[in-house]
Amino acid sequence: MILSALLTSVAINLGLCLLFFTLYSILRKQPGNITVYVPRLVADGKVEEGRQFNLERLLPTAGWVKKAWEPTEEEFLSNSGLDAFVFMRMFVFSLKVFTFGGIIGMFVLVPINYLGSQLTDDSDFQHKSLDSFSISNVNNGSNRLWIHFSAAYIFTGVVCYLLYYEYRYISSKRIACFYSSDPQPHHFTVLVRGIPIPPGSTCAAAVERFFTEYHPSTYLSHSVVRRNNKLHNLIEVPAAFVSFKTRFGAAIALHIQEGVDPTQWITEEAPEPHDVYWPFFTVSFLKRWISKLGVFVAYTSLTILFLIPVGIVQGLTHLDQLETLFPFLKGILRLSVVSQVITGYLPSLILQLFLSFVPPTMIMLSSLQGYISWRSALYRVNIFLEPKGIPRVLAEAHAVMRRPVAEQLAITTAPSGIAERVTTAPAEFLKVYVPKFETGGEFWPTVHTSTIFSLILMHVIAIGIFGLKNLPLAAGLTLPLPILTLLFNEYCQKRFLPIFKHFPAEVPSSASKSSCCLSLQS
Amino acid sequence: MILSALLTSVAINLGLCLLFFTLYSILRKQPGNITVYVPRLVADGKVEEGRQFNLERLLPTAGWVKKAWEPTEEEFLSNSGLDAFVFMRMFVFSLKVFTFGGIIGMFVLVPINYLGSQLTDDSDFQHKSLDSFSISNVNNGSNRLWIHFSAAYIFTGVVCYLLYYEYRYISSKRIACFYSSDPQPHHFTVLVRGIPIPPGSTCAAAVERFFTEYHPSTYLSHSVVRRNNKLHNLIEVPAAFVSFKTRFGAAIALHIQEGVDPTQWITEEAPEPHDVYWPFFTVSFLKRWISKLGVFVAYTSLTILFLIPVGIVQGLTHLDQLETLFPFLKGILRLSVVSQVITGYLPSLILQLFLSFVPPTMIMLSSLQGYISWRSALYRVNIFLEPKGIPRVLAEAHAVMRRPVAEQLAITTAPSGIAERVTTAPAEFLKVYVPKFETGGEFWPTVHTSTIFSLILMHVIAIGIFGLKNLPLAAGLTLPLPILTLLFNEYCQKRFLPIFKHFPAEVPSSASKSSCCLSLQS
Repeated sequence: MILSALLTSVAINLGLCLLFFTLYSILRKQPGNITVYVPRLVADGKVEEGRQFNLERLLPTAGWVKKAWEPTEEEFLSNSGLDAFVFMRMFVFSLKVFTFGGIIGMFVLVPINYLGSQLTDDSDFQHKSLDSFSISNVNNGSNRLWIHFSAAYIFTGVVCYLLYYEYRYISSKRIACFYSSDPQPHHFTVLVRGIPIPPGSTCAAAVERFFTEYHPSTYLSHSVVRRNNKLHNLIEVPAAFVSFKTRFGAAIALHIQEGVDPTQWITEEAPEPHDVYWPFFTVSFLKRWISKLGVFVAYTSLTILFLIPVGIVQGLTHLDQLETLFPFLKGILRLSVVSQVITGYLPSLILQLFLSFVPPTMIMLSSLQGYISWRSALYRVNIFLEPKGIPRVLAEAHAVMRRPVAEQLAITTAPSGIAERVTTAPAEFLKVYVPKFETGGEFWPTVHTSTIFSLILMHVIAIGIFGLKNLPLAAGLTLPLPILTLLFNEYCQKRFLPIFKHFPAEVPSSASKSSCCLSLQS
Repeated sequence: MILSALLTSVAINLGLCLLFFTLYSILRKQPGNITVYVPRLVADGKVEEGRQFNLERLLPTAGWVKKAWEPTEEEFLSNSGLDAFVFMRMFVFSLKVFTFGGIIGMFVLVPINYLGSQLTDDSDFQHKSLDSFSISNVNNGSNRLWIHFSAAYIFTGVVCYLLYYEYRYISSKRIACFYSSDPQPHHFTVLVRGIPIPPGSTCAAAVERFFTEYHPSTYLSHSVVRRNNKLHNLIEVPAAFVSFKTRFGAAIALHIQEGVDPTQWITEEAPEPHDVYWPFFTVSFLKRWISKLGVFVAYTSLTILFLIPVGIVQGLTHLDQLETLFPFLKGILRLSVVSQVITGYLPSLILQLFLSFVPPTMIMLSSLQGYISWRSALYRVNIFLEPKGIPRVLAEAHAVMRRPVAEQLAITTAPSGIAERVTTAPAEFLKVYVPKFETGGEFWPTVHTSTIFSLILMHVIAIGIFGLKNLPLAAGLTLPLPILTLLFNEYCQKRFLPIFKHFPAEVPSSASKSSCCLSLQS
């Protein structure tokens, strides 16, 4: 790819960004679109439809951007819930990392790379290959590589600091929200599966007998899961929702192995009442286990198959290969604009297109996996969507030896159009997004792990580059960096992860004072 | 190695076995040795010292072998505990696997291998290389390889059946023993570490306040850990043993995260009273964590370093290389007996010698790892000692392409002298071994996993061999075998492993009837 192709790509993205910004500015003001752009306010009766026509309605304005940033964190939390809040923090975190990496890359590393003379590229500035701006152009063994070395350490340090800060902050919010929120029915309830029904007895009797015997002081009541069969009879499904007098009682039943046979009396967290996904209640332990394994295989295959579009994208950046494969295209490909669009913009477009197929596929697969809750099904999808970048990142690593570290970081940390998304996200959350389920920000640990993975990948690449560039000392001295990063990760997971798994027995003394979380609308 | 070298090794081992058997038979009857051979009976007053001299005392007899097998399982359990019982089952299990593998290998595979003509070895029978008895000698592409293929499936099936049977049997014994044993003080107690002491308060007050608040109905009492410092003052260690009114109460405190900060109020199982290892009570969360990491690195290094003796052993079996390295030994090495001992017996002797260094090293390392219990320290050692064979097995895999599957199995499953050990083990357990600690057979899952690992390794090797032998169909059809084995393992771990981690809330209806476990002597 040459510089002008990159600039073309930047120009197309900026142009599209401006176009969507303008369209959004105008469309949102049209009375007919109110239900599209502010459905929450319409539902809450805060917006009246059908205002009078005025010219201002046809002009793009930017006032809504300011407004979108006005709500405080507390307002945001109570309006949209912790999940949306954590989602926002994730974007802001990415923006911080991207800005810091971008500044170091653009103002320190790229100039240093450009001053090198390793590659002989005599084209004029506009037609210079991007390689001339990459670390490839720094002379082998040059002491300037130590600046890249320092950049890797500084960048890692800053990212880890930000990660720690976010993890701690989100953890504290999660605990505060849990204790300040109204008690929810599903906190008092566990789902019990694999109920062994003695011959001649019923499921209800078995559950009653078991929990009165082993949880006498906390057991409240139960409700056996039934379903209509095709003959419209109620069938005896061996699963039940068991309720306890206290949240603590439910937590005990959840954490202590109940049955002598670990495949019986399995307790799991009850989903929120409107979050129950019924089809999987009839499935046995073995069937669920097999379907989970099957879906795991499908996941893995999909990840591998995803290398195909990545390969296509890689091919596009090598225009000469394309010419060899399709000689009849030669004429068109030689047109400057066409080649710039093809090598600069098309690859990211194709990748985005293929990425958009991933979420529906994942939802389909996760629904096969036997979850009894829509939320957890979607949450799993979310987990996978986050590391979905992994194959892409890995594939890009092929090309990375010829790219500056900062550019690589930009690829890893900033999906295209992130600034646009950050700007519009609060508006969407407050006026469109109606939170139905609340995981309490449980996806943050995934974001954390993915970032650590990207850092380690960067270190490995850096070690490789320093080795190739005849600076083995720098390669050796970079080695502690991934080790320290992994230790940092290990510490963070010990320190914060349990908070995202279960809630502690201790109630923080400040809990009763804060009241920051929304109550879900059932 | 040639056949006569193998036979020499067998002869030496048998000779030594007979020698030790005779020595044991005579020595055990000498009155002066009573405290060595039956110290338990002496301690219990069941044996009187100083009998009259008679000739029988100087003759080797075998009656004790029969006697050693006389006690029933129940007697054995109540005398020596579940750990010793599981240890015995482990030996018997190994013996079963070894016998089955040995029969298939000796009477089916070895004859088939010998009938092949792939290797041209014109030596007379006695000087034939062992390769002539290995799968290497089967002709490439021969249909006889399908017998090896079937053997792999049959052997895996039998081993998996035995594994399942043992796992289920030991699980049931473990549960029965737990419920029939007298309640032990450490079942009612948890160790609490990382106690945050508010300024102006004491550790005792903090513990009292916390557990009266969050476990009001089950909390009984506590005892803060103190230690003498060099000035003989009692110091305020932030750890305490907290006792509960019921086992269930202690289990709740153990399983539910206590503090808002997961590095505070950490609960763990209390060791048995006489099993406490005090030095590590003063160590902080971070220090323990770092020392654990350090020991992990040491473990890994040791495993890698262990390849050195394995390399030496491998070298010894190639006598010609030894001649090249030390030409002055040529004369001696050419002596038939010397070469047979060196290639046949010496390798296993050297390996045994190096293996004997492992346990003390492991005990040293595990004592650095921050355990507060001798038992758990030793248990960890046990875990590592079991997979200690892994590097050996892997190293032997180098040579394995030239050996029959059955021989490989014999290496993996049967340590030398196993028959001898099995015979003497009950005598030792009943008359010498005084159980001090009881893990309730917690090491069985490790034995299970190691066996599965060996099976998978065998499958991988088999696939490789079938590939090399130009029978790709057999290689392909072997592929499902490791997958099925892993699925079987996954099922077993789901079904039985939780029983070895924690005890369930449910009490089996038969529990009160059986009474099979010993009470430990404090």
